Amino acid sequence: MHNDFLDDDKLHEECGVFGIFDVNDAAAHIALGLHALQHRGQEAAGIATTNSEEFYVHRRHGLVGEIFGKQKVIDRLEGRNGIGHTRYSTTGGNSSTNIQPIFADFNFGGFALAHNGNLTNAGTLRESLIKRGSIFSTTMDTEVMMHLTSLSQEECIVNRLIEALKQVHGAYAVLGLTKEKMIGIRDPQGVRPLVLGKLDESYVLASESCAFDIIGAEFIRDIEPGEVVVITADGIESIKPFENTANRFCIFEYIYFARPDSFVNGQNVYQVRKRIGQELAKEHPANADVIVPIPDSGVPAAIGYSETSGIPFELGIIRNHYIGRTFIEPGDQIRHLGVKLKHNANRSMIEGKSVVLIDDSIVRGTTSRKIVDMIRGAGAKEIHMRIASPPVTHPYFYGIDMPTASELIASNMSVDEIAKQIGVDSLGYLSLDGLYRGCGEENGRNNKNPQYSDTCFTGDYHIPLIDQEGGSNGNSTTKLRETG
Amino acid sequence: MHNDFLDDDKLHEECGVFGIFDVNDAAAHIALGLHALQHRGQEAAGIATTNSEEFYVHRRHGLVGEIFGKQKVIDRLEGRNGIGHTRYSTTGGNSSTNIQPIFADFNFGGFALAHNGNLTNAGTLRESLIKRGSIFSTTMDTEVMMHLTSLSQEECIVNRLIEALKQVHGAYAVLGLTKEKMIGIRDPQGVRPLVLGKLDESYVLASESCAFDIIGAEFIRDIEPGEVVVITADGIESIKPFENTANRFCIFEYIYFARPDSFVNGQNVYQVRKRIGQELAKEHPANADVIVPIPDSGVPAAIGYSETSGIPFELGIIRNHYIGRTFIEPGDQIRHLGVKLKHNANRSMIEGKSVVLIDDSIVRGTTSRKIVDMIRGAGAKEIHMRIASPPVTHPYFYGIDMPTASELIASNMSVDEIAKQIGVDSLGYLSLDGLYRGCGEENGRNNKNPQYSDTCFTGDYHIPLIDQEGGSNGNSTTKLRETG
Amino acid sequence: MHNDFLDDDKLHEECGVFGIFDVNDAAAHIALGLHALQHRGQEAAGIATTNSEEFYVHRRHGLVGEIFGKQKVIDRLEGRNGIGHTRYSTTGGNSSTNIQPIFADFNFGGFALAHNGNLTNAGTLRESLIKRGSIFSTTMDTEVMMHLTSLSQEECIVNRLIEALKQVHGAYAVLGLTKEKMIGIRDPQGVRPLVLGKLDESYVLASESCAFDIIGAEFIRDIEPGEVVVITADGIESIKPFENTANRFCIFEYIYFARPDSFVNGQNVYQVRKRIGQELAKEHPANADVIVPIPDSGVPAAIGYSETSGIPFELGIIRNHYIGRTFIEPGDQIRHLGVKLKHNANRSMIEGKSVVLIDDSIVRGTTSRKIVDMIRGAGAKEIHMRIASPPVTHPYFYGIDMPTASELIASNMSVDEIAKQIGVDSLGYLSLDGLYRGCGEENGRNNKNPQYSDTCFTGDYHIPLIDQEGGSNGNSTTKLRETG
Amino acid sequence: MHNDFLDDDKLHEECGVFGIFDVNDAAAHIALGLHALQHRGQEAAGIATTNSEEFYVHRRHGLVGEIFGKQKVIDRLEGRNGIGHTRYSTTGGNSSTNIQPIFADFNFGGFALAHNGNLTNAGTLRESLIKRGSIFSTTMDTEVMMHLTSLSQEECIVNRLIEALKQVHGAYAVLGLTKEKMIGIRDPQGVRPLVLGKLDESYVLASESCAFDIIGAEFIRDIEPGEVVVITADGIESIKPFENTANRFCIFEYIYFARPDSFVNGQNVYQVRKRIGQELAKEHPANADVIVPIPDSGVPAAIGYSETSGIPFELGIIRNHYIGRTFIEPGDQIRHLGVKLKHNANRSMIEGKSVVLIDDSIVRGTTSRKIVDMIRGAGAKEIHMRIASPPVTHPYFYGIDMPTASELIASNMSVDEIAKQIGVDSLGYLSLDGLYRGCGEENGRNNKNPQYSDTCFTGDYHIPLIDQEGGSNGNSTTKLRETG
Repeated sequence: MHNDFLDDDKLHEECGVFGIFDVNDAAAHIALGLHALQHRGQEAAGIATTNSEEFYVHRRHGLVGEIFGKQKVIDRLEGRNGIGHTRYSTTGGNSSTNIQPIFADFNFGGFALAHNGNLTNAGTLRESLIKRGSIFSTTMDTEVMMHLTSLSQEECIVNRLIEALKQVHGAYAVLGLTKEKMIGIRDPQGVRPLVLGKLDESYVLASESCAFDIIGAEFIRDIEPGEVVVITADGIESIKPFENTANRFCIFEYIYFARPDSFVNGQNVYQVRKRIGQELAKEHPANADVIVPIPDSGVPAAIGYSETSGIPFELGIIRNHYIGRTFIEPGDQIRHLGVKLKHNANRSMIEGKSVVLIDDSIVRGTTSRKIVDMIRGAGAKEIHMRIASPPVTHPYFYGIDMPTASELIASNMSVDEIAKQIGVDSLGYLSLDGLYRGCGEENGRNNKNPQYSDTCFTGDYHIPLIDQEGGSNGNSTTKLRETG
Repeated sequence: MHNDFLDDDKLHEECGVFGIFDVNDAAAHIALGLHALQHRGQEAAGIATTNSEEFYVHRRHGLVGEIFGKQKVIDRLEGRNGIGHTRYSTTGGNSSTNIQPIFADFNFGGFALAHNGNLTNAGTLRESLIKRGSIFSTTMDTEVMMHLTSLSQEECIVNRLIEALKQVHGAYAVLGLTKEKMIGIRDPQGVRPLVLGKLDESYVLASESCAFDIIGAEFIRDIEPGEVVVITADGIESIKPFENTANRFCIFEYIYFARPDSFVNGQNVYQVRKRIGQELAKEHPANADVIVPIPDSGVPAAIGYSETSGIPFELGIIRNHYIGRTFIEPGDQIRHLGVKLKHNANRSMIEGKSVVLIDDSIVRGTTSRKIVDMIRGAGAKEIHMRIASPPVTHPYFYGIDMPTASELIASNMSVDEIAKQIGVDSLGYLSLDGLYRGCGEENGRNNKNPQYSDTCFTGDYHIPLIDQEGGSNGNSTTKLRETG
Repeated sequence: MHNDFLDDDKLHEECGVFGIFDVNDAAAHIALGLHALQHRGQEAAGIATTNSEEFYVHRRHGLVGEIFGKQKVIDRLEGRNGIGHTRYSTTGGNSSTNIQPIFADFNFGGFALAHNGNLTNAGTLRESLIKRGSIFSTTMDTEVMMHLTSLSQEECIVNRLIEALKQVHGAYAVLGLTKEKMIGIRDPQGVRPLVLGKLDESYVLASESCAFDIIGAEFIRDIEPGEVVVITADGIESIKPFENTANRFCIFEYIYFARPDSFVNGQNVYQVRKRIGQELAKEHPANADVIVPIPDSGVPAAIGYSETSGIPFELGIIRNHYIGRTFIEPGDQIRHLGVKLKHNANRSMIEGKSVVLIDDSIVRGTTSRKIVDMIRGAGAKEIHMRIASPPVTHPYFYGIDMPTASELIASNMSVDEIAKQIGVDSLGYLSLDGLYRGCGEENGRNNKNPQYSDTCFTGDYHIPLIDQEGGSNGNSTTKLRETG
Repeated sequence: MHNDFLDDDKLHEECGVFGIFDVNDAAAHIALGLHALQHRGQEAAGIATTNSEEFYVHRRHGLVGEIFGKQKVIDRLEGRNGIGHTRYSTTGGNSSTNIQPIFADFNFGGFALAHNGNLTNAGTLRESLIKRGSIFSTTMDTEVMMHLTSLSQEECIVNRLIEALKQVHGAYAVLGLTKEKMIGIRDPQGVRPLVLGKLDESYVLASESCAFDIIGAEFIRDIEPGEVVVITADGIESIKPFENTANRFCIFEYIYFARPDSFVNGQNVYQVRKRIGQELAKEHPANADVIVPIPDSGVPAAIGYSETSGIPFELGIIRNHYIGRTFIEPGDQIRHLGVKLKHNANRSMIEGKSVVLIDDSIVRGTTSRKIVDMIRGAGAKEIHMRIASPPVTHPYFYGIDMPTASELIASNMSVDEIAKQIGVDSLGYLSLDGLYRGCGEENGRNNKNPQYSDTCFTGDYHIPLIDQEGGSNGNSTTKLRETG
């Protein structure tokens, strides 16, 4: 899906999770929920269900609709309880074994596990687990969690999993499934989102509330940072086993990852984005004829910018919806043409005009130049680029697929240099405080106790990077390359 | 692609055509051009090229990107000249033989032919051709044109094709390809669009100008109603062989079919749609909090409506871009959930508000109720539906896949009845004159010599329906059902 | 399927046909019949059925089981009457349009046509048909027959088809299907086989009787050379419209093409092959320890040779049955290993022994050397090759895919030279008279009125090669390359 | 592949293994070797290679040629060392994770493991491993071996694996692969075969010698029961770590499993089968006209029977080689026709004759009746069935997919009853001593120390059935059903 240049220069979320308890056709509901979370990961998806006797798992590469589009696939996933996962590929991982949920057969019965996030000490833990005789069949952090759970001496699976998670560092939203329980956990700093909903009497857990809407479930609340919820036939129980919890929700969820119609961490994403656009208009006004969003992530901020500035909002870039997984592998003759497969400048709104282009962020900056060229080619008189977030200067290790510092344009260039590089007449990034204000913090960032996880703008690594500091990357031992 | 309820109730264009002459890698350019025309037909596509010695054809069911996404497929289509076609399925036609361009081996060499449109005397002609011994291997009108061309006694292929077209009635934009010529023809009333462009020194013909943008070609002009252009190594020649030409461009191209970034029949589609929205705001104002387009076809009219009314434009319905060809075949338990696979109400922009919903047209009305229910479910206080065209009351036979009169809601109900049926607080259709004004006719429709083909609103069948009058439907003889 | 070296050097049959009239589920019966005829053509297959109102056609590349293996495919082919075809690829023809049966819509209704064989004046006829305005959509001879039928002024389809066939030269077994009739025709010299059977009250026509066995039908008789049978609800009618008929059945059907369990042209193939092996043992005895057939076509002759010679028959070459359509595309390192994918020498029966290798024929001779090397590598002391037919010296144009004379080893070398070339200690070809005796002609070949079509051994072109003499090859006009 | 009734009633081997050390393009060689072993398992296959730095694994469902037929798949499997596996499905196992080789990342580096056979205490071991915290991601015995290896405190991987295998009971031929070693092990009683070969300087290990022939390798010797061979850059080392070894090779390898051209356990399979046929002729002569093998497994015994009896051998049943994975799903109308998809009676050799039918074994007896009916339908005067092994009366748990006792016809009926049930005029099973004589034991079975594993004929469970006795079946804990 990300075969278009407009997506090439985005950060990529790594996962979405969805679970439902005590409903007819759990698998069908989960498939719909995962479909609504498809933007959080397009590479692979899986569902595990249980009918309280056996477990059923189906995991594949592909889009949710491709994998779970056939009734017979859904029918094989029996049971009223289940969890699902959709993922974005991380390094090296085209392996068919690297898809969640994962399953293990314990003493007390089966256990399925799925998570969104990233552990910063997974490599270190993995090494010591291997030393004591554990066998790994994937390269996923989730398997580290599973081994730790397996080795816990606690009786109850909930306590086992908590004991396991007390040993890990990182950002995670975890779903667990036993024959009789569904467990949801959000990391102590609440970096990754997890929300609770209800469909009639059935509890639902999901990364974002848009996954509730697709099945008609009602949004109840966010799971809190460090909270463990245990859902059984008797209802829902909340546990808070972690000390030192804080709320440092990933601010990029509001900027780009989450769907605009979702409510996460207490706010609606579309409204946050509009407010961010309003802050941007205040900080970086422009004398222009038209406000043009870079679709689709720039649209709400552009509407906000238009409202505050009074300059008309127009669809100056038109999207072609008929993009499949592949398109023409360009021969040398037409390679330069490839740029416009998915979008086209709407010349009638551009020609002879002074244009404000609104984008949510610039990461590598590799494609901004192409967009600017396309708009320039459609006859724009002036181009003023406005970015609805601060410069991305630091890599982020808490659940996002991220370039290294050397690839980040703002890590290497000043704003003026970037403006020149991408060919705009002016360039304005939203300030960090402006971003926080857009996110509802009237006084901007509290630098002593920052309200969000904003590492990529600040370098504030608030969860320790154990593996990196210890020199481990989880791959110190032999590497397996399995083709999927 | 049309697996979502929002598309279920649209009229469907039947075809798009694209041709290019004297360029390296003609097939790659055509594939890109067809991709840009994908909205005109998603069922099948084909390309015919020639290297001036042999002809090469590749035709398949599927999206352009699926069919022509592999370099080796493109590589087999040798030559610097070629034409392509993308089509929407018509009745019964899942046949693999029913894909254009079609090819025939003539005395003087090969000839490939593709067209967008519909002949109203195809059945009658087909019957008499069969009587004289012609064999048909498809059920397409294009094959009738090919047989007539084959039987012409003219020497030159251009004259043969003209002689053939003088025998047909209907709406058509035709592309023909010989070893040394590319021919483009628009029917005498100019119902279907065909535009001329240039990529460096190479001429290009396409249904819409958006297909020029994708390859970086320059838009030159519309082919005129009844005009024949012949492109050879010596340049372009224009012929006007038909008497009684008029310009009755299909007004639904402006309302819904064409891409907003295209220029066709002298105007930019996005601008026309915005003006239509402005006319709609004047004719049917609403006391409301927010203007919400039904994506994506309602967006330009909604922006126009918002500008004129001063009521803010918001994305109150969010689109999920990850829709493949299939999705979950719902079991009985979840059938009711299927409605929201592709779109979701953006509750924060709807709840407690008085909402103006903007759509381009209502055909059967089968899905408007579902949209309204979704918006109502998201907490709208009032819903005012505004339609950017008049009531669709008559079937249309000039190149559109169209329901029968009994299926058209406005053919059977008054506006008030429709409003009640779909559950809105108020409903306003744009008037015919308002539509014409939006299309640039300041004085509205000239009822003596109407400026557009508007049959579905008026019942003005300006091209005679020969087959229907004569009782022939082209299927009077034995029917073949070939599975593709 | 023919991806193994043992098949590389065989002549290939071009087609098999099968039709059934008035039976429940005609398509399922035809699919089984075509499966039994799969050895006559593995590239593509098609079935046309009629429920006496509409016609249904399904045609694809692939094996019969691949194409017709799904119940839903069969279910779409409605009706109690139908004909089918399986084909071996001829020149250039990877086109999806080049699959039979073909269909045309006539005045009087639909007509489907399929044939096994080859016309020697197809190119000449095609040229004059094109000159008068006929359009060809395939490159198959069958389409020439269809056009001639279409142009006939006869009222009745049977007479039209007969009139058409009176204009062609060549070898053919034709099946035709109208709403109410099934027609079977064998060419005036009876070169290609066609047999009549009965399943309860339903008549069946097939290339070979083995196709009757698979559906439990009873073999009735051969269709005679030049005979036309017309099967209707009233029964079967036989017409003999051609003058100058003779019986010159293709002798290669007995040598290699037909399945050993079939009865064609009055004899059982297995028995003929055994008798041929007996003749071979008489003509070319060998002082050896063991008789080893080259599987599978050499087996019956080897059993016959063993019986006559008294030397034990052993499976000295073992076949691997798990060969799919593709296998490892060998890199340079292992290219030499590819030879043994399908067969292996059975060392225990070869080592230290004097071996008689029995093959049905040698065409190019390209692979005989590899077989001999394999046997030599397994430790054979002596290798005596015995061939159950005379040297193949002339190309054959009556329905076989055939190399040119320059590729035929026996057209360029003496028997001694061939023996040296392929590395055997002795080589013996059966004489022409020996072959005829094996085929039941006690006095051998009647050189004045030869009893068989034996052109590839004799150069006796008993059907005139019109196209070749006239310089036409049917491709004199522009060539279309359609990718399938 | 086993979609034909003639295969429905056979016992099925569970696996074949192949490894090669220090050769260019190890993966290509392994793919060829596995292809030659395809008869030992058609459901799935996998290859693991190492370039002494990384490991590469590719595992899939399907035939070897389907999985490894593309050069790019082979190219991704880098390295000069590797092992491969082809498997027949066991219970429940359509899981994509249940394919070998399996891989684990140890302290000292990666380790890949594959085996043919079955452990009789796998369930018991699995339970205690889970209790101590091991996680299982497959249901294969191989993973039990891997966990035991992982937990061993030995330094050297060879000793670890030996220590692991000392804890298991069962029949196995194991291949292991580290960065620098290839290990081959045969269980202490040598139930499953494993042979050693050499291709130039590269050592090869395989289940059967036919896998050497396909790559041109030389057969060296059998691995001995209980022998461990360790192949490194320095050559081959042999270890005998197990006490109490014996040689009880599975006699069914000679009867049916192994390919006739293989040498295993010291003998050529074809020769053994011929001798078995000779013994059968002596024990159960018949007054008949013709000896007809049931293809293909009955052929060598039939040749032996023919030689001894003097009655001519004929191919009375003809095989259709064009059988793919699927064929027509028969509707009710034609279900009865399905029986002849793969074979047909050769009527000319059957009609009016007294026929001896030779088969290797009868398991359930479900299809013998159908064969007999087919032969009777082709006109046989008398049918005498002769079986080249004793009655199968007991289930076998040492590496064969086997019905339960209640499904075995000979466990429930006398020979006379079976004869009546399948409709033959006479039925003769080879005696146990006759079978042993055919296998080269002149004095028949040594009942004190039987020379072969012959449990299915005798009920002699010479390896203890730990899981069954202990009530464990390895599935006592929660079951996972993963769809592949």
